[in-house]
Amino acid sequence: MKNIVNFLFEVGILKKIPRSGYQFLGTGGESIADHSFRVAIIAYLLAKREPEADAQKAVLMSLFHDLPEARTGDHNYVNKRYVVVNEDKAVEDLAHSISFGGEIASLIHEFNSGQSVEARLARDADQLDFILELKRQQDLGNGSAAEWLTYSVKRLGSAFAKRLADEILKTDSSEWWFTKKEELWVNG
Amino acid sequence: MKNIVNFLFEVGILKKIPRSGYQFLGTGGESIADHSFRVAIIAYLLAKREPEADAQKAVLMSLFHDLPEARTGDHNYVNKRYVVVNEDKAVEDLAHSISFGGEIASLIHEFNSGQSVEARLARDADQLDFILELKRQQDLGNGSAAEWLTYSVKRLGSAFAKRLADEILKTDSSEWWFTKKEELWVNG
Amino acid sequence: MKNIVNFLFEVGILKKIPRSGYQFLGTGGESIADHSFRVAIIAYLLAKREPEADAQKAVLMSLFHDLPEARTGDHNYVNKRYVVVNEDKAVEDLAHSISFGGEIASLIHEFNSGQSVEARLARDADQLDFILELKRQQDLGNGSAAEWLTYSVKRLGSAFAKRLADEILKTDSSEWWFTKKEELWVNG
Amino acid sequence: MKNIVNFLFEVGILKKIPRSGYQFLGTGGESIADHSFRVAIIAYLLAKREPEADAQKAVLMSLFHDLPEARTGDHNYVNKRYVVVNEDKAVEDLAHSISFGGEIASLIHEFNSGQSVEARLARDADQLDFILELKRQQDLGNGSAAEWLTYSVKRLGSAFAKRLADEILKTDSSEWWFTKKEELWVNG
Amino acid sequence: MKNIVNFLFEVGILKKIPRSGYQFLGTGGESIADHSFRVAIIAYLLAKREPEADAQKAVLMSLFHDLPEARTGDHNYVNKRYVVVNEDKAVEDLAHSISFGGEIASLIHEFNSGQSVEARLARDADQLDFILELKRQQDLGNGSAAEWLTYSVKRLGSAFAKRLADEILKTDSSEWWFTKKEELWVNG
Amino acid sequence: MKNIVNFLFEVGILKKIPRSGYQFLGTGGESIADHSFRVAIIAYLLAKREPEADAQKAVLMSLFHDLPEARTGDHNYVNKRYVVVNEDKAVEDLAHSISFGGEIASLIHEFNSGQSVEARLARDADQLDFILELKRQQDLGNGSAAEWLTYSVKRLGSAFAKRLADEILKTDSSEWWFTKKEELWVNG
Repeated sequence: MKNIVNFLFEVGILKKIPRSGYQFLGTGGESIADHSFRVAIIAYLLAKREPEADAQKAVLMSLFHDLPEARTGDHNYVNKRYVVVNEDKAVEDLAHSISFGGEIASLIHEFNSGQSVEARLARDADQLDFILELKRQQDLGNGSAAEWLTYSVKRLGSAFAKRLADEILKTDSSEWWFTKKEELWVNG
Repeated sequence: MKNIVNFLFEVGILKKIPRSGYQFLGTGGESIADHSFRVAIIAYLLAKREPEADAQKAVLMSLFHDLPEARTGDHNYVNKRYVVVNEDKAVEDLAHSISFGGEIASLIHEFNSGQSVEARLARDADQLDFILELKRQQDLGNGSAAEWLTYSVKRLGSAFAKRLADEILKTDSSEWWFTKKEELWVNG
Repeated sequence: MKNIVNFLFEVGILKKIPRSGYQFLGTGGESIADHSFRVAIIAYLLAKREPEADAQKAVLMSLFHDLPEARTGDHNYVNKRYVVVNEDKAVEDLAHSISFGGEIASLIHEFNSGQSVEARLARDADQLDFILELKRQQDLGNGSAAEWLTYSVKRLGSAFAKRLADEILKTDSSEWWFTKKEELWVNG
Repeated sequence: MKNIVNFLFEVGILKKIPRSGYQFLGTGGESIADHSFRVAIIAYLLAKREPEADAQKAVLMSLFHDLPEARTGDHNYVNKRYVVVNEDKAVEDLAHSISFGGEIASLIHEFNSGQSVEARLARDADQLDFILELKRQQDLGNGSAAEWLTYSVKRLGSAFAKRLADEILKTDSSEWWFTKKEELWVNG
Repeated sequence: MKNIVNFLFEVGILKKIPRSGYQFLGTGGESIADHSFRVAIIAYLLAKREPEADAQKAVLMSLFHDLPEARTGDHNYVNKRYVVVNEDKAVEDLAHSISFGGEIASLIHEFNSGQSVEARLARDADQLDFILELKRQQDLGNGSAAEWLTYSVKRLGSAFAKRLADEILKTDSSEWWFTKKEELWVNG
Repeated sequence: MKNIVNFLFEVGILKKIPRSGYQFLGTGGESIADHSFRVAIIAYLLAKREPEADAQKAVLMSLFHDLPEARTGDHNYVNKRYVVVNEDKAVEDLAHSISFGGEIASLIHEFNSGQSVEARLARDADQLDFILELKRQQDLGNGSAAEWLTYSVKRLGSAFAKRLADEILKTDSSEWWFTKKEELWVNG
């Protein structure tokens, strides 16, 4: 039981670790937990469209894909040029003493190898979450975001993911709630 | 496609809405996305132990359970005494224009009614995530957390959840990484 | 005496509750206390121009108008479409055990009904404070602020308030201190 | 009109200037606007008890008392040993071009001289607001707050203010909302 | 020994005092410690180019130049119009009980008088650090930064510092890491 | 010239990278720039006591010792168990195109090898800065800090550093300014 508790406190630190790319982007920010949350939902959405994909597996994979960062820290694209992360060891240490640890380790390795249908979906979901954040920052006035977006969209794998990215780039991040119903906004 | 993009920007605002209970607790804090992330992992863990539970459903339910708060806002226990939230309307508005909206709405309603095995697991997971946060704040010096914990543990439903809570209350939140290997800490 | 102390701690939580509209605006932010502070000063200013207005009453009304939010939470325009707030109950609970509670409750109700001269002034002051914040964010680069401003100015009631809003939209938010006296800026 | 707008943007910067004492206290924090907000409410409360006090004047005085800090900055008790602030000049500059500037200047000077009934009430209110914050931080675990409180209560002038301070020191800052009604907390 | 410890805790508060100019700029921010850190590095760089400059002295001077602000607070250009700071007293109080206090005091006075080669270099370094921050904020979308930059560059003394400032204004603040190697960004 | 500008923007990111150990400690926080600032001052202080030490070199070494983290990121003691950082490559990349790059690289390598007098002083200064922060957090109520301190003091090398640490552990972090002169605190 203590193993489970320790594991849950470990998962909790992902709420406190900021994703380091934002230090370079200059505006915005989120925790690893924030990120994984929406990656899981995007993965679900992508998987629902693919008959051969196991949607639930893609969701779990997305929830777990950054779990090792509780131990290794979060590395952005600049950091990665200088650092070698022993993720296998981190995965082993986090998973070895809990009963479902093997399943978690397996899903993380599958995500990293990027071969299976679900892994490719989850990796696209990982990128799309960042593309949505970059678009948001662009809408809020950060002129650098445009260049980051150019590179980010190139990392996408599937055709659908790319079309979704095109649509993201054309959609104002406030559109979902800013319905142009003047009556609501003046008298509400 | 635009509907999906708008939905994803909507999901993104959950990363920016702070859970309001912390204003009253006085220390700590997290976003709704942070919270839902670990609730989903706890639900997975609880469901793996219950043969009759659909673990994957419990995970999805946990990911979606606070989605309506993107529209309604987050209400803590004090707020709830004064506010009536039309969650059904929020669920409908968020879900109506996306193809998988029916599934999301259904899972949220199931969570709220708290009847099914998965709903009961997810509701315990919801509480356990907060219990873990309260314990963390207690470890960091917030003397109020003790009283909050007393009430929080009473909201738990299953026997296993209660035993897990007992173990949480006896475990230092740093134990998972603070291995007492002096060599590491002095020479590392 | 304890009632007074509890009331004052309750008032204090307004310093810790962020105004939720900024989650949607994307930049900026303020507490309910921050907001009420300047609303009171704006109301004073508006009332001084209106011979029939009781300036002091307008100031008190502005200071108290969001007091119930210590219990109900702060709801932005999106939230308000999905939530019914029992403000009367909140007002009653906050006011019942202090001697001047009746006066506070009366002022809040008067503000909400928006009928009296002072109430209309205070409601305009409420809007103008937000218009000033939106203009500030616009000056700092948030392109969304323009659209929000369009709707916000339409909520104003009096002719003077609208003219003041026009002037706000034409004034750089730094002008009050950025006197173009080069000598000061180079040698100061 | 522009003078009024510039004045209002100037008032707005008080929402962005943190009260510097908290850098030394180590926990907590608030803006000058946050502080003035509750000082005004406390002054109202103190004045209602004193038949010879003009409650409305005490409220206005409290709202304006730190207005010059938009230009001078906020100085804590350590800073004050090393700095001479030309507050008269700041008051003059902020007030000279608005029609009600004379009234504001007059109230600030009255507050600073601390002679009149209202000035003494407002100065006690100024201290009481900080005492409430120190008590809050003490409740949250900051052991330094006790010593700060010892000195703060000695700055109070009136007998009622001192009795109020005694009551503050004996009241848990969460008591106003943490009603021990288990039913609410378990089933709410 | 205690004097040294007290001195080091005093130095530590510079990490907690925000540089107040950013309240007026509206975006960005840094502590006095952050600022002094890069000023020291810039001073080193400027001094290495000047044969007659004592590079090490310029570095120490830069590290110490804002030490008195631990006691006096940080004053921006608006504050300085209204405040007289007794920096000598602050320097004396901070330095009197430590053995190397005389050296610190001497360096601070030298910096303030701005006469020596090193003092002039350090003062340019002080400005250049802020110019770099303003450029960063400009790149991130703050349109006000342009005007601040106009005045800031005029405060520079040496020809080299002015040329360096010209180059800063033409360089994107992300250029140092955003190498346009598409391979890195797409496959990294 | 552009190389220098790029180098200075690179140095600037150290103001934005939080030192990751605080995510685990739970309270407090500082940037790499904040940290390096006081490490440099502590190194100066330690070197002044050692006749054979080049104080100026120790200061520069301290200022530069974490420069590579602009590229590699900051790794705490947990991260270091899982990550191999190619610091030499980071040092090379940051230094290769500026004229004084060789000196910076040399000082960083000297610090890392920990052999020279100055390197040992600077490494002790690195630890002492963290010990001061841990003591501060302990004073503010974080009960975990005690255990961290136990291990941190063991990493110190010189006898003087250890005695300084003992004194730190016995000194209240507020003592430097909280002079018990009641007159100041009541009437100031």
